[in-house]
Amino acid sequence: MTIFDEATAVSGRGDGLYDVLPDRRFALVAPAGSAPPAVNGGVLIATVLRAVLDSSPHPHPIATSAHFLRVAALAPAQVQVTWLRQGKTAATARATLIQDSVPVLDVTVTTGRLIAGESDAEGLSWTGAPPDLPPIGECVDLDPWPTAAGPDQAAGPQEKAARVETAGYAGQVRLLLDPAVAGWRHGAPAGLPEMRGYFRLREDREPDVYLLALAVDGLPPVVFGLGATGWAPTVELTWHMRAVPSPGPLRVAARCRHVSGGWFDEEAEVWDADGRLVAQSRQIARVGRGRARARS
Amino acid sequence: MTIFDEATAVSGRGDGLYDVLPDRRFALVAPAGSAPPAVNGGVLIATVLRAVLDSSPHPHPIATSAHFLRVAALAPAQVQVTWLRQGKTAATARATLIQDSVPVLDVTVTTGRLIAGESDAEGLSWTGAPPDLPPIGECVDLDPWPTAAGPDQAAGPQEKAARVETAGYAGQVRLLLDPAVAGWRHGAPAGLPEMRGYFRLREDREPDVYLLALAVDGLPPVVFGLGATGWAPTVELTWHMRAVPSPGPLRVAARCRHVSGGWFDEEAEVWDADGRLVAQSRQIARVGRGRARARS
Repeated sequence: MTIFDEATAVSGRGDGLYDVLPDRRFALVAPAGSAPPAVNGGVLIATVLRAVLDSSPHPHPIATSAHFLRVAALAPAQVQVTWLRQGKTAATARATLIQDSVPVLDVTVTTGRLIAGESDAEGLSWTGAPPDLPPIGECVDLDPWPTAAGPDQAAGPQEKAARVETAGYAGQVRLLLDPAVAGWRHGAPAGLPEMRGYFRLREDREPDVYLLALAVDGLPPVVFGLGATGWAPTVELTWHMRAVPSPGPLRVAARCRHVSGGWFDEEAEVWDADGRLVAQSRQIARVGRGRARARS
Repeated sequence: MTIFDEATAVSGRGDGLYDVLPDRRFALVAPAGSAPPAVNGGVLIATVLRAVLDSSPHPHPIATSAHFLRVAALAPAQVQVTWLRQGKTAATARATLIQDSVPVLDVTVTTGRLIAGESDAEGLSWTGAPPDLPPIGECVDLDPWPTAAGPDQAAGPQEKAARVETAGYAGQVRLLLDPAVAGWRHGAPAGLPEMRGYFRLREDREPDVYLLALAVDGLPPVVFGLGATGWAPTVELTWHMRAVPSPGPLRVAARCRHVSGGWFDEEAEVWDADGRLVAQSRQIARVGRGRARARS
């Protein structure tokens, strides 16, 4: 079992109730002295989706709307799933992640069945232009894995282990950013709220429903491109699964339309290695205060 | 009181329960012999928002996620509001429209406070390009009001009254479409899933929170531009309020990224008469069967 599958595992108790455990290995690396680690929101959504799909009449989460209420603690939690309707084309459930009897994350999911492959011959089919990404070899590795060649080679085994232990989300995900949107790493933001890159887990695990839930919010916040590199908490995120992804790295492209009054939107598209649009998301989030290089 | 305000009125019973009545005047004009009239989804969302804002600590629905479960009947209904969290910056409620003890529409709303006007001087501010619309005088009036000049002049008073009575949604809303996206009306769709136009009520009522809930799904479905002009039911719609709208007609622009397996997405932006982005939405919907000119 992979780390990602362990971190998103659910254990059914019956009556739509599931035990889960927000996992330190997908927590965000917060600046020293700041709030306790927050687990990546996409991992929490993936966990909730496991509970929902466990009793769904349809295999795919067509529409998943998540409202983030509180920061999840690294402690036992439950997911309560309640079906509102189970129809032939679509079924809708509410699912709530609960800790200490308090709702932490409220999700509504409509499931359905996506047609695999290119079997759309009889129906209407249309797709917009894919994101324009440079070849993967020209992209910037956002967080070099400590065991990789480079400056980290100098670190001793214990230092490496410590870094992996605390690396959290950034240690689990391999992001290769388009250099055109990576200038914020060196204090030279591009001046546009855009992010583009290749996304995959560092461990050997191919994309599926659950990994898409991570990928739709997998890039650094788009406002990093405007120089606002503080922690940018997601308030609400809705994503749509559009196709079953093929194996291989995912291409993710995110844009923003409006930043104002401390709020910004972020829309992401995820394309699979076969060049198909497999997921779309939009979220509303708070602009981070300060310019620390925290990761959302 | 305007027709729109009557159609979205709520009457509190206490304990978060509200009486409402889906209004025939905002029902869709279904092709003869088809299903009973369905009330426009935006009007139902506006109704639910009235109930939520009635007890919200914050005035603006920052994020509203709506999952449509069943077709609402033209009969008494209730909205049940349950607050999940009330925080200083944001508060989140679940609200369910219920008929005959069965959930019809499930909505999660996160409210907050948007800063009025251009008082963003101290914060980060950025906005993308506005939609490119021709002047309002060059646009195509989608559904001429029966009392307007034109072919309808020939109708007698009784015929006019009957038409207004049954015109439903199309009789309440004035849509002026960019001619470039209106070809589907004459069997010559543009070949692109896009809609753009000016939106306002026919009665004298300026935009506010509730009218934005209507405007974000106010245009004909984007797939009309691909020639698929059957009824296209919304399965899930999430919208974000971004600013308090000024008086005057709203500009609405909608696009689509992917049509496949009977599903399509539609993303709309609403800009006010002062040129500010006031609302954004994305929905996932079913491609209509047949080519009848029903309105979503």
